Amino acid sequence: MNDAAEGNGFNPAEEGVVSWIRGDGPHAEIILSTRIRLARNLENYPFREKSGSEDRERARGEIVAAVRPGDAGFERVRSVRLGELSERELNLLLELHLVSRELVNGRTSAALVLGDEGRLSLLVNEEDHVRIQTLLPGFQVEEAWRMAEEMDRVLRGRLRFAFHHDFGFLTSCPTNTGTGLRASVLIHLPALVLTREISKVLQGISQIGLTFRGLYGEGSDVIGNYFQISNQTTLGKTEIELVQHLAKITQQVVEYEENARQVLARDALDEIEDKVWRAYGILSCARAVSFDEMMNLISAVRLGVSMKLLPPVRVFDLNRLLLLTQSAHLESRAGRGLSVREAEVERASLVREILGGGERGTNGGGR
Amino acid sequence: MNDAAEGNGFNPAEEGVVSWIRGDGPHAEIILSTRIRLARNLENYPFREKSGSEDRERARGEIVAAVRPGDAGFERVRSVRLGELSERELNLLLELHLVSRELVNGRTSAALVLGDEGRLSLLVNEEDHVRIQTLLPGFQVEEAWRMAEEMDRVLRGRLRFAFHHDFGFLTSCPTNTGTGLRASVLIHLPALVLTREISKVLQGISQIGLTFRGLYGEGSDVIGNYFQISNQTTLGKTEIELVQHLAKITQQVVEYEENARQVLARDALDEIEDKVWRAYGILSCARAVSFDEMMNLISAVRLGVSMKLLPPVRVFDLNRLLLLTQSAHLESRAGRGLSVREAEVERASLVREILGGGERGTNGGGR
Repeated sequence: MNDAAEGNGFNPAEEGVVSWIRGDGPHAEIILSTRIRLARNLENYPFREKSGSEDRERARGEIVAAVRPGDAGFERVRSVRLGELSERELNLLLELHLVSRELVNGRTSAALVLGDEGRLSLLVNEEDHVRIQTLLPGFQVEEAWRMAEEMDRVLRGRLRFAFHHDFGFLTSCPTNTGTGLRASVLIHLPALVLTREISKVLQGISQIGLTFRGLYGEGSDVIGNYFQISNQTTLGKTEIELVQHLAKITQQVVEYEENARQVLARDALDEIEDKVWRAYGILSCARAVSFDEMMNLISAVRLGVSMKLLPPVRVFDLNRLLLLTQSAHLESRAGRGLSVREAEVERASLVREILGGGERGTNGGGR
Repeated sequence: MNDAAEGNGFNPAEEGVVSWIRGDGPHAEIILSTRIRLARNLENYPFREKSGSEDRERARGEIVAAVRPGDAGFERVRSVRLGELSERELNLLLELHLVSRELVNGRTSAALVLGDEGRLSLLVNEEDHVRIQTLLPGFQVEEAWRMAEEMDRVLRGRLRFAFHHDFGFLTSCPTNTGTGLRASVLIHLPALVLTREISKVLQGISQIGLTFRGLYGEGSDVIGNYFQISNQTTLGKTEIELVQHLAKITQQVVEYEENARQVLARDALDEIEDKVWRAYGILSCARAVSFDEMMNLISAVRLGVSMKLLPPVRVFDLNRLLLLTQSAHLESRAGRGLSVREAEVERASLVREILGGGERGTNGGGR
């Protein structure tokens, strides 16, 4: 894993590598994380479609060198070339939400420059030469934007980005041209799903310049009631307008979700209580569980904790469950490859450990 | 409930009223109870089909008077006329397995004479004038037979039963004529169901003079993997032959079930462990549960406890769960009628209480 040449590698299996799982941001019970990315390209290199491997090598070197320890968000600068990583390490980075599938696919020339706890990072030679990415816990759209903007300002002092005075920042794919900005929140909407209000809400969102996607499991079903909401357009508005629009609408969606929870508490408390307790009971006791099933059960537990129907479970632990029970993290923990069934058994064991159900099941369980 | 005229009523809602739930008989983990009944009719009264209400009244009086405190199994004699009971009290008796649906349907002239802890009882004016019934915990076919035979001997000293020197005891329905004996065991066969061996075993049983039926839930599905095995014929063999045949075959079925559990432990331990722990987790946490679902979950817990995969739960408690979570018992406990949903909530609460899950869920559950 160590990028020996640069002597600043990192281990993606360390839990502390990302801050978003801490669950200490605003509205962290409903919003897992906020992400901003700014797409930028170097003026004096061909864009991705037309670039050769030598171009990409040189672009990578120039970008990585432009980040210096002490830059805001980069107390330490750790960079890694994706081509040097094992499959499992690449999967760990994907599971950490630090890199995109596209970056992994273009791994030969791709690199990741990682700032403190993954709050700020650069994806190098993905679709664009560089994508400045911020990833913060909870609902922090403006903070994430300010951090990305600051890094953009720093890099613009050291690199020349392709910019057109009519269009704005030029990008490999025209849909990103202009601001090059994509802002998104990962939001948990179980009550809107249970009250069947979700499609109305999502439809409304897509009529006002935003877009959404669910989190998909092994099949094609949305799992765990998580949705990612992001801006659709990047052109014709200022960055701050785009960011504030997302923040405002997200705030509304949070209110819809909170209202839906109140409706559930008023009209279906029995059913909800039963649902969340069953999920809690299964997670505390199961000896094997698939990722998809677990996601749905954790969604119910997250709802139950938030509605104070269940014993308190820290949002940090709920987020750790989402992160650490993914396949590559389980394999990293086990120190070996795992069959699907073995992963289910390891996952259930870790879930019991994190929920504190392990001891309860064997000591306090019966009579 | 008190049969004031006779001053010896009883309360079917008392747990101590039946011994079969104790779970202290032989093979109690697999066999819930053993039952014997002997059908008898008085010589000098018309049989059921031809009898008037006055005949039945007099027959009842004669039979009830024939049982005396101090007779074996009747330290106390408690008798009750079913016509004097409320719907809920009748349902309690049905749920206790003390009376048959047929006795309840003919309630105007029907009576129950109950011995100590329901081990011995007389059903009066059911299909026959009197049915001597023994009901013991666990696997006790010969003991149950001896107890019934002793009572039969006592009654024959005080009453004249219709008897034909070729056919034997005469009964209202010809299928009971001869010995008038029905012997049965209520047996839990989850491993034979899981290994799909059950139909072969049941088919074998029905080829050697025995018959079986499952325990049906609210729908038409067999629930909880409980089966009642009993003799098919009552004629042409002596009582002791019929009883010993049932005992021998039941012993074999117990061995098949034990073998199937060993196969499961050898070939599918992971799956079984997961299954029984999930059942345990749901029962310990659910806030509402239907009787059918609960029966299936308890079946898994009973299997898991018996295979030592779960913390120990006393067979007594597993049996109490089956008994006390039935509708009439729940209503009796609540002191009022319950809607289906209310019963589900009460049932789940009682299940948590009995499994000790109530406190665990709220005190030791989270962090």
